[in-house]
Amino acid sequence: MSLQHPPLHTVHVPLGERAYDIVIAPDAIDSAGEHLAEMFPGARFGIVTDENVAAAQLPRLLRSLDAKGLMHTEIVVPAGEASKSWDRLHTVAEAVLAARLERNDLLIALGGGVIGDLAGFAAAIARRGMDFVQVPTSLLAQVDSSVGGKTGINSPHGKNLLGAFHQPRLVLADLSALETLSPRHFAAGYAEVVKYGLIDDEDFFFWLEANFNEIAHGGPARAEAIARACAAKARVVTADERETGDRALLNLGHTFGHALEKVTGYSDRLLHGEGVAIGMALAHRFSARLGLAPSQDTGRIEAHLKNAGLPTTLADIPGDLAPTETLMDAIAQDKKVSRGKLTFILTRGIGKAFIERNVDPAAVSAFLEDMR
Amino acid sequence: MSLQHPPLHTVHVPLGERAYDIVIAPDAIDSAGEHLAEMFPGARFGIVTDENVAAAQLPRLLRSLDAKGLMHTEIVVPAGEASKSWDRLHTVAEAVLAARLERNDLLIALGGGVIGDLAGFAAAIARRGMDFVQVPTSLLAQVDSSVGGKTGINSPHGKNLLGAFHQPRLVLADLSALETLSPRHFAAGYAEVVKYGLIDDEDFFFWLEANFNEIAHGGPARAEAIARACAAKARVVTADERETGDRALLNLGHTFGHALEKVTGYSDRLLHGEGVAIGMALAHRFSARLGLAPSQDTGRIEAHLKNAGLPTTLADIPGDLAPTETLMDAIAQDKKVSRGKLTFILTRGIGKAFIERNVDPAAVSAFLEDMR
Repeated sequence: MSLQHPPLHTVHVPLGERAYDIVIAPDAIDSAGEHLAEMFPGARFGIVTDENVAAAQLPRLLRSLDAKGLMHTEIVVPAGEASKSWDRLHTVAEAVLAARLERNDLLIALGGGVIGDLAGFAAAIARRGMDFVQVPTSLLAQVDSSVGGKTGINSPHGKNLLGAFHQPRLVLADLSALETLSPRHFAAGYAEVVKYGLIDDEDFFFWLEANFNEIAHGGPARAEAIARACAAKARVVTADERETGDRALLNLGHTFGHALEKVTGYSDRLLHGEGVAIGMALAHRFSARLGLAPSQDTGRIEAHLKNAGLPTTLADIPGDLAPTETLMDAIAQDKKVSRGKLTFILTRGIGKAFIERNVDPAAVSAFLEDMR
Repeated sequence: MSLQHPPLHTVHVPLGERAYDIVIAPDAIDSAGEHLAEMFPGARFGIVTDENVAAAQLPRLLRSLDAKGLMHTEIVVPAGEASKSWDRLHTVAEAVLAARLERNDLLIALGGGVIGDLAGFAAAIARRGMDFVQVPTSLLAQVDSSVGGKTGINSPHGKNLLGAFHQPRLVLADLSALETLSPRHFAAGYAEVVKYGLIDDEDFFFWLEANFNEIAHGGPARAEAIARACAAKARVVTADERETGDRALLNLGHTFGHALEKVTGYSDRLLHGEGVAIGMALAHRFSARLGLAPSQDTGRIEAHLKNAGLPTTLADIPGDLAPTETLMDAIAQDKKVSRGKLTFILTRGIGKAFIERNVDPAAVSAFLEDMR
C-alpha cells in the first residue's frame, strides 16, 4: 500500500480471517480515502457520526473520500451516551437499509466510543452483518472501544447488555482529532491507557508515570502510548476473542465503574473513563484489603490517576451517591456475573491483575460501605 | 449419551467449534430435559414461544425440563409473522435480561420459523451472544429455518433485513408436533423440502414424488424426508456458513417468494412456503424462457407442488396482486442484490440450480408482466 503520508504506527490484530490493522497517524482521517479505495474497491460507505464530530471532523473525511471518488451517505445522531439506545440503533439500522447499502458496502464509525459501539452494532445486524471501519476521534475510542470487536447499546438493566462481537475491517486513529478533546475527556480516555499497565505490564505503567507530561501535551510519547495500549488490547483480544477467558482482564475497574455509571444515569456526572479510574482504584484497594496486593501500589496508582486529572474515590463523584445496596444491585446485574457469584478483576499489585470468579457479594458490600 | 428413546435420525452439522446435532424423533420434546441436562449442566433456560405453541407443546417441554430439575422461565409472544418485528425483539431481549439469564444460560426457541428467527436473534444480541437451542414445531422450521444459524426480523424495507448468523447448539425436531399442523401449513413447509431436490438432488425429488402420500400422512418416509432435507441444508451451510457463495442456492424461489410475501403484507394471504413454491415455479419457468432449462421440468415441478396442495402461479394468490413495478421494487430491495444487478437462483433443470449474479431487471419485469 503506497500512502502519501506513512503512518506513525500500525498495530496488527491477528484474528485469522477477521484480522485487521490499526493505523495511528496525525492525518488518518485525511488518508482514509486512500486506504478505503485500495481495500474495498467498488464499495459504498455509510458514515455514522454524531452532531459534534460531524461539525469537527466530517468535512475532512468527506474531502478524503471525494478525492478518491468514493460513494458515501451520512447518518448523523445526537452526541452522548443516550444514543446507545434501542431506538437509536433502530434509526441507524433502518437508515442503512433506506440508503440501500448492500452486503459488500461498509459502515464507517466516525466518532468516540458511543458511535463505535452504535455503528458497529448496526453493522453487525444490518443484512445479517456488514463490514465496518472504525475512525475513532476520542482517546477512549482509540485505545479501547474501537479495538476488539465489542459493539453494543445500553439497556434499562445495564450498560452494553445488548450487542454483538463484530470486528472492524480497519481502524484509523487520527491523532489530530484529539486536539479538540476537552482535558476532562482526554483524561477519561487516559484511564484506559493506564489500565493496560495495571493489568499485566508494570513497565508500561512506570513509563506512563515518567512520560505523562508529553502524553498530555501531544508529543511523540502520546502516539507511542496509544500504540502500546492498542497493542496490549490486541494481544488480549487475539488470545480470547469472545471473552470466554482472559479477555475479562480488560474489565479491570469496570465492574465498579459500570455500576457507578449506572447509578449516576450514564451522564456527564461521571464519564466512562472516570468510572473506570475510580473502579481501578477501588479494585486495587479491595485487593489490598483482602491481603492480596501491597497497599503502597494502591497509593501509587491513585497518585498517578489524580495527576492525570481523574477521580479515584466515591467522594470524588459530584452529587449524592445512591445507597450501597443500589450499587450492589447494579453490580449484580452487570453481565460479568456467573451463577450468582460475583466475578471481579482483582490484583496482586501493579501489572498483576487476575480474574476471581468467586467474590463474596457481602465482602464487596461491606467494602463499598466503608469507602463512602 | 443414553436416552430412553433413541432418536429416529440424527443429522450432524460439522461447523467446527459451532458444530451441532439435529435430532429428529417423535418424542424429541419429551426427551429435551435429558439432552439439555447432559449437554448444559447448571444452565438455566429461557423458553421463547408463541401463544399457539404454548398451548399445544409448552406443557410437554416443561414436564421434560422439570423431570430433570432444570430451571426455566417462559417468554410468550403473539403468534404470527408480525412478531418478527423490532419492538418484539426488544421485548424478548429485555425479558431475557430481566430474568437475569447469564452468558452460560440458554434460550430455547419452541415454535415455528418465526419463533426460531426471533429467539435466535435475541440470543445473538443478549449479553453479546448467548447459546440457544431450536425446538422447531412446524415442518418449515424443522427442514429449513432451525438449521443453519440464520436469525432475524423483518424491516419496513424487506424481510429478514435485520439479523445475525448465530448457530444453535442443538436442534430437537419433534415429529409428533407436526400432527397439529393444518394441511396448509404442512404443505407450506413441504415446499422447502422439495427445494432441496430442485437445487442439486434430482434423485431426492423423484423419491419425494414417489413417496408423497406417506410423507403427507406421517409414515417413516416423513421422518426420512425431514432428515434428508436437514442433511442437504447442513451440507450447504457447512460449505458456506455466512452465505458468501453457494449457500445462496438455498434461496431458490426466495427472491420471487420474498417479493410476493412483501406485497401481500406478510399475511395469511400467502405463507412463506407458498411464496417459495410460486417462486420456485417462476424460477424454473424463467430459466426455461431464457433457454436454460427444459420446459417439461417446469411442468413436472408444478404438478408435484400442486399435488402437495401448493400454489404455483401468481393467479393462485387470492386478492388483487400489486402492479409489476411494485413487485420489482420489492425484488430490488431484497438483500440478494449486488451493485444494482439482480442475483437470482436459476436452473438448468431439476437438481441443477445455479447462482446467476447478472440478471437483467428488465427481463424479470417483462417475465412477471407476462405471468400475470
